[in-house]
Amino acid sequence: MTYTAPTTEQLFVLDHIARIDAMAQHERFAAATPDMVEAIVTGIGDFAAEVYAPLNRVGDVNNPRWEDGKVTMPPGFKEAYRQFVEAGWGSLDGPAAYGGQDLPFTLATVVIEALGSADMGFTLCNILTPGAIHALMAYGTEEQRQTWLPKLVTGEWNGTMNLTEPSAGSDVGALRSTAEKVTEGEHAGLYRIRGQKIFITFGEHDLTDNIVHLVLARTPGAPEGTRGISLFLVPKYRLDAEGRPTISNGVRCASIEHKLGIHGSPTAVMIYGEEEDCLGEIVGEEMGGMRAMFVMMNNARLMVGCQGVQIAERALQQAQRYAAERVQSALAGSPDRTPVTIEHHPDVKRMLWRMRAQTEAARALIYYASAQTDFGKLGDAAAALRADVLIPLAKAHATDIGCEVASLGVQVHGGMGFIEETGAAQHYRDARIAPIYEGTNGIQAADLVGRKLGLAGGEGVRSLIADIAHGGVDFPELTQLAEACGAVTDWLEQASMPDRLAGSYPYLTMLATATCGWLMAIEHRAAKAALEADDGDAAFLGSKIASTRFYLQQIVPAATGLAAAALAGDAALPTLPRIG
Amino acid sequence: MTYTAPTTEQLFVLDHIARIDAMAQHERFAAATPDMVEAIVTGIGDFAAEVYAPLNRVGDVNNPRWEDGKVTMPPGFKEAYRQFVEAGWGSLDGPAAYGGQDLPFTLATVVIEALGSADMGFTLCNILTPGAIHALMAYGTEEQRQTWLPKLVTGEWNGTMNLTEPSAGSDVGALRSTAEKVTEGEHAGLYRIRGQKIFITFGEHDLTDNIVHLVLARTPGAPEGTRGISLFLVPKYRLDAEGRPTISNGVRCASIEHKLGIHGSPTAVMIYGEEEDCLGEIVGEEMGGMRAMFVMMNNARLMVGCQGVQIAERALQQAQRYAAERVQSALAGSPDRTPVTIEHHPDVKRMLWRMRAQTEAARALIYYASAQTDFGKLGDAAAALRADVLIPLAKAHATDIGCEVASLGVQVHGGMGFIEETGAAQHYRDARIAPIYEGTNGIQAADLVGRKLGLAGGEGVRSLIADIAHGGVDFPELTQLAEACGAVTDWLEQASMPDRLAGSYPYLTMLATATCGWLMAIEHRAAKAALEADDGDAAFLGSKIASTRFYLQQIVPAATGLAAAALAGDAALPTLPRIG
Repeated sequence: MTYTAPTTEQLFVLDHIARIDAMAQHERFAAATPDMVEAIVTGIGDFAAEVYAPLNRVGDVNNPRWEDGKVTMPPGFKEAYRQFVEAGWGSLDGPAAYGGQDLPFTLATVVIEALGSADMGFTLCNILTPGAIHALMAYGTEEQRQTWLPKLVTGEWNGTMNLTEPSAGSDVGALRSTAEKVTEGEHAGLYRIRGQKIFITFGEHDLTDNIVHLVLARTPGAPEGTRGISLFLVPKYRLDAEGRPTISNGVRCASIEHKLGIHGSPTAVMIYGEEEDCLGEIVGEEMGGMRAMFVMMNNARLMVGCQGVQIAERALQQAQRYAAERVQSALAGSPDRTPVTIEHHPDVKRMLWRMRAQTEAARALIYYASAQTDFGKLGDAAAALRADVLIPLAKAHATDIGCEVASLGVQVHGGMGFIEETGAAQHYRDARIAPIYEGTNGIQAADLVGRKLGLAGGEGVRSLIADIAHGGVDFPELTQLAEACGAVTDWLEQASMPDRLAGSYPYLTMLATATCGWLMAIEHRAAKAALEADDGDAAFLGSKIASTRFYLQQIVPAATGLAAAALAGDAALPTLPRIG
Repeated sequence: MTYTAPTTEQLFVLDHIARIDAMAQHERFAAATPDMVEAIVTGIGDFAAEVYAPLNRVGDVNNPRWEDGKVTMPPGFKEAYRQFVEAGWGSLDGPAAYGGQDLPFTLATVVIEALGSADMGFTLCNILTPGAIHALMAYGTEEQRQTWLPKLVTGEWNGTMNLTEPSAGSDVGALRSTAEKVTEGEHAGLYRIRGQKIFITFGEHDLTDNIVHLVLARTPGAPEGTRGISLFLVPKYRLDAEGRPTISNGVRCASIEHKLGIHGSPTAVMIYGEEEDCLGEIVGEEMGGMRAMFVMMNNARLMVGCQGVQIAERALQQAQRYAAERVQSALAGSPDRTPVTIEHHPDVKRMLWRMRAQTEAARALIYYASAQTDFGKLGDAAAALRADVLIPLAKAHATDIGCEVASLGVQVHGGMGFIEETGAAQHYRDARIAPIYEGTNGIQAADLVGRKLGLAGGEGVRSLIADIAHGGVDFPELTQLAEACGAVTDWLEQASMPDRLAGSYPYLTMLATATCGWLMAIEHRAAKAALEADDGDAAFLGSKIASTRFYLQQIVPAATGLAAAALAGDAALPTLPRIG
């Protein structure tokens, strides 16, 4: 139940997939020198292993406690969070003008990966704050930035996203919370917020002395649907004249949920403006809320995709350690009847290599997508377009991988995997949330076929498929999958929306697997070249050659078999009969 | 969170897949008339829904309590179990000579399916007793049968299987429990049992006034490995002169496990003969234990496969009910902007149809395998051979389906699926044990390539593939998969044991999917014919046509994509590098 950050692997992917060296050529990211990158990757690995990892089971067993509107975190969490803030890990990609280090988002991704592998639930507190920072940078006023950003950048205050209401889940536009502008008095210009929000991650806790809620609500007379939504910054405590969070703001946590996993993360029901006034500042313009929220959501979707990598890595390590210790049965077909550690039995090896190949593929996909957003910020329009296409793939497919790998991790443990004290079961429970929140994976698939497919006249998806096909020269399996993706894309482009949606999920899985296959092929060639040049850790490079080959030869061909489902259309899905 | 037995579906599968009518042509099963079959299927459906289903969450939340060696079941369980015994559900396929009804095992499978869908954890108490009955029928003395069978057949006493020890899991032959024959005194001929067993399902509880443990142990001087193992019947209480279980027998429950799921089933650590004498009767001959245990295991493996069906059906019903109630978003591409229930959204429909198709496929596989064991008992050697081949497919693939469907069930619920009170999360937790116990699914795959592949000179597997290929005439996808299975079989037969094992799991999935595809094709044709003849429930038949088509056109082609993994061999799986 320990965690060791895979720093050699992380640095390899940063080099060959994220092209962090190319980023550092630009003045904005000049600070991301190889030494700095290595210091960050090894530093956060140590921090995560030492400070966060020991809390993982603590949080699972001693859930946060709700009492009288306040949430008390489990023992040790406050101290660990304080250390996170003091070490400056939160400010890595924050804007320099407000105390940040302005490093690439890709490096923040590595930080979040390590922390989340150590403790996925706890790390949620660190995931949403950057989204709030991005929203304020994109749409906030200078005064708002100066007021809120410095503490958000360090993590002294955390940010939350308040979208969901009981009748507004995937359909954000159905939300009913209201915001009425104050027209006179000391609060003129602010808005009175009223409503209930559910599923608010870290909506209430005792880690920080303020919480900055970003809340979607409707102004009076606003049109139905997402067009009528505005975004508000609603602090738990208003600031006094000295900027200290001392004034109660009518924000109440009504309860926290009893969940399958991520017990270390309090999921709150929040009530705004029920008994006392709750005041919020508008971020951007009235009815410009969805645009601002998308800035947060894109960031959060990549971070949730990263959770797939986090939990997969943790589950892989736990399973591999167990398999290296557990002795059971001699090798079949061997004359030697001495029992061996189970890591030597072919089907256990198959599970472990599958876990490893999938984990590495998900990491490549997430780092690549993060890097494309960084290159986009540097003015590379093709990279920005690529990032747009990748976000649904990264969010959905990496989280599917997280669940699969965590489940294989349970299986490697045999009966012990089902015993809670072992820890494998916690990963299986924790992993299951990631395909659900920040837009269910079905919503990601709808985004892919409904919006991303048409970007730049279809060029966004087509250029990705062309890159994949081009990169598959050594692997006919990949070329074949790229061709199948191309054929399905052709069909989807001319299909009705119901037909597109009916095939959206298998299509997403195909395209994401093809993308991962392409990235794994790049890693495969890089590892071979490095090994031939005697440049690097030979054990790591040998393992990388094996895992990438496994992915390309065993996982990629299976995805080609999804084409039939992607092409089946809505007519294959009649309304279901009633039960009973 | 309610359950309605799918009786129309169950009767349809009994007719067209199990061929229950053909069984009833034989004198031994003449009692299985259509009226009797329908009475059993509808009767157990009502009983399960009314008596067992309400306990499902009770058992999940109020775990059995261990105190001072005794286990107290949650409220309501004792009364429900009493009703099960009194209604005679336990005796269905029990031997008539000892109070049973001698009906086909296939009908007992339907009984267990309904009970287990209602409460999977609780129903484990009913699953292992028949194995004990079969072992006594096959290897017990007439005196043993007369002593133990009547109460086992009714379920007044339950049976347990005691194989696993801390160092003997998948490797049963490594067990260390001992049995020493008593040579003189009143207990001469009995054996003194000593040792510790773990993971003993319903090893201790308060539902019955005795528990009949079947325990594997080693006699003095017995050879290493499975060859040296003998089987003993070890009661919790010895019987007094009147046959009442009143005499303590040195059997102690040291603790019960804290598990991921099936909380309603106590999983016990059992200690035999630690402080007081523990006496057991040998079943069969010394060192004949594994043969006798296989009789229990084959039965238990089919029953665990059935758990995959159970949890899939329950998860499907829960998801479908939620999807029919939850309103969210208008249909994409529709001019009408009124929000609809989510069952109408294409990707939700896809998930529900996939759940339904997989559940029905697993049911077909389990009923078919159960029926082949019944036909085998009637003297049909081909059916007995077929059953031998089917058991690993049924156990492994149906339980994999159980996990997949339960996971999709969580996903259909969106955020609510992650909240424990909803119930979907419990199915996801419960389902996860079935691929592990009664021989992990990896062990099933090893059994398939290591033993079943060679049965009858390879005819067992080849005749199955020939039947599948023959049955695929309307579905080129199935013919293609059958051909792929044939090609992989050819390769495996000449491959080394490590190469066979490396490909065993993908091969099992391919062959099981092909078998399910064949059975679904039979159901497809039967449903079409019935619909054309206006014979039966048109809504059910229409749904059956859609679900079977979905299976054949969307699930079968994906399995063909596993051939590359099945053929990759052990060289693709080097030893993994150490972590850190």
